[in-house]
Amino acid sequence: MKELNQNAIEFHRRYRGKIAIRTKIKLNSKKALSLAYTPGVSAVCLDIQANPKQSWQLTNRANQIAIVSDGTAILGLGNIGPAAGMPVMEGKSAIFKEFAGIDAIPLCITANNPEEIIRFCQQIEPSFAGINIEDIAAPACFEIMDKLEKDLNIPIFHDDQYGTAIAVLAALINAMKLTKRRLADQKIVINGAGAAGLAITNLLLNYGAKDITVLDREGAIYQGRSGLNKYKAILAKRTNLTKAKGRLGEIMPGKDIFIGVSKGNILQPENVRAMNAKPIILALANPTPEIMPDQALAAGAILACTGRSDFPNQINNALVFPGLFRGLLDLGITKVDQKIKITVAEAIAQHIKPSFSNILPNITDKTLIPTIVKAMKKAKN
Amino acid sequence: MKELNQNAIEFHRRYRGKIAIRTKIKLNSKKALSLAYTPGVSAVCLDIQANPKQSWQLTNRANQIAIVSDGTAILGLGNIGPAAGMPVMEGKSAIFKEFAGIDAIPLCITANNPEEIIRFCQQIEPSFAGINIEDIAAPACFEIMDKLEKDLNIPIFHDDQYGTAIAVLAALINAMKLTKRRLADQKIVINGAGAAGLAITNLLLNYGAKDITVLDREGAIYQGRSGLNKYKAILAKRTNLTKAKGRLGEIMPGKDIFIGVSKGNILQPENVRAMNAKPIILALANPTPEIMPDQALAAGAILACTGRSDFPNQINNALVFPGLFRGLLDLGITKVDQKIKITVAEAIAQHIKPSFSNILPNITDKTLIPTIVKAMKKAKN
Repeated sequence: MKELNQNAIEFHRRYRGKIAIRTKIKLNSKKALSLAYTPGVSAVCLDIQANPKQSWQLTNRANQIAIVSDGTAILGLGNIGPAAGMPVMEGKSAIFKEFAGIDAIPLCITANNPEEIIRFCQQIEPSFAGINIEDIAAPACFEIMDKLEKDLNIPIFHDDQYGTAIAVLAALINAMKLTKRRLADQKIVINGAGAAGLAITNLLLNYGAKDITVLDREGAIYQGRSGLNKYKAILAKRTNLTKAKGRLGEIMPGKDIFIGVSKGNILQPENVRAMNAKPIILALANPTPEIMPDQALAAGAILACTGRSDFPNQINNALVFPGLFRGLLDLGITKVDQKIKITVAEAIAQHIKPSFSNILPNITDKTLIPTIVKAMKKAKN
Repeated sequence: MKELNQNAIEFHRRYRGKIAIRTKIKLNSKKALSLAYTPGVSAVCLDIQANPKQSWQLTNRANQIAIVSDGTAILGLGNIGPAAGMPVMEGKSAIFKEFAGIDAIPLCITANNPEEIIRFCQQIEPSFAGINIEDIAAPACFEIMDKLEKDLNIPIFHDDQYGTAIAVLAALINAMKLTKRRLADQKIVINGAGAAGLAITNLLLNYGAKDITVLDREGAIYQGRSGLNKYKAILAKRTNLTKAKGRLGEIMPGKDIFIGVSKGNILQPENVRAMNAKPIILALANPTPEIMPDQALAAGAILACTGRSDFPNQINNALVFPGLFRGLLDLGITKVDQKIKITVAEAIAQHIKPSFSNILPNITDKTLIPTIVKAMKKAKN
């Protein structure tokens, strides 16, 4: 890992980041300038003023989204600030372009409260066809999404919530297929009650899961626990129906699936051994997973997944967001509802014949994008 | 003009705007993804968190600026809104890239008041090495610039003010050279007291002009005129020292230089004939100049300039902003002071041997950019 870190820093220093602007047309003549800029551009502006929908035809807007982050929850690193979050947002932008041809502008911003992020996104709406909210800490991200999903006329997607939840659901669809189990019968532990944890819980419940226990830093969340924020209080009504209490080590025995969206190295082999036979381990903390996959397998897991590209069974949002946004833009969809999330999860799952070492498509598989778009189109009609 | 307008709209429809994102590196392998994205990117983020200046080395920030507009004063078209302003901002971005290699992100935003634009620019600071404020109406733009020039640690430049003023000064430096006149002796009329008018006035006064009369929609501005906003009141103390009153037709007689930054077709040939012998006409309204250059010349002008690329003697900010920003970024300059503005104007003027049909360099002349950067470097040392 130390060598990889050093290589990554050298790589970024060499290229000074990962994205740049390119011009679609040459501007090296007065004629080109008079069309692309003054005086010709005036007519283009007036055309959009007269008919605002023309901004999708006459500017790059139709293919352009913003990636907005305040740097409060960068990967598993926490609140490292907007400038330090930029390498991740540039990475997402590069993936958007490479895999889906989408022009995604990274905007790492300072914000003192959720209202400032909400206002910022409202302000940039005229420049973009969609907004990807990224790495904003919970519970602020829930408030932001609730408000913006109502207010904006362009789609908004919080990748840490929905991207992660869709990728996890896709992996579990294939895991159920491989193990001939039903999601409704699985006892599931979700460690981490941030953006990802809550969104995964909601999506799995909507897809038929019945027995989920979610843990935050204080242990299992149950109805009536003191100090729950309003989002955890809502969650508590639909999960942990036996009101089990305790830390991770006390909750793990007798469970079938562990989903970690928390931090590195917090799941021990004995926790895995205490689970039901052949448990499924999704240790998704980045860059260090909750348990290394070899340890999980040695402790009896039938399937071990991480968020990393250097291990098999990568569960990564990068499987989701390029195709999903391509679909939103191409199909003119303005709201990302539960039906779309399930459609995309199923499309990703069905894109390959899964195995225990290849539970999901490879993130470098570009054919996944048209598969997702096609499924979204079918679901829309 | 009708054909040009139709061609411009077709041109924009064909390409769907003028800019896009490009990736600096291929991301088609797990290895590349593990360096550019998770897990390798974590180390890059932490490096910037530990030393914020590293964002200039490890991301695209060092070469990246924002073009921010609220759409309230797009070209000479007025308040047409942010979405309709996008073709101009994309055009500027394309020019920044083509001529100076700068990655400029157009951000057309909704804003209810100057404070919202100020806060927006503060918010995006961590993502950019500079901000180009564009087409924001006066007097809001003055308040915004006053505040942001104090607050930001990256350079901020209001192109409509400073870009235009620098280009005008450059043209007048060469006009004085050609006509063997001194700027201090010229009687100057500036029609238009918006962003450009006030900035031109200030820069010309700083460069030695002594006799300037500025007009707004109500006529000549003079000290004590009722209803002046605070910026015009300050201006009135330094201009129109005889306190002349009246409309443009009454002010023009006996003047040497007309500078129009107002609207199309408002200067008549008889106004030009009423000026001193061999007057200089800078009719800069876009897309339609205050007077067509052939009319101005027929009425006795020795030099007629417009803002347009389809006439000779184009005075356009595009001569200024690519080189000036290249200099700001390359030299790490964080404030654009009067000395820099004069340095750049002189560099542009000296870049060519001027004539009455070639008063300034051609805007397609890419060698102007290194000339400007070199002059800024010399002035800095």
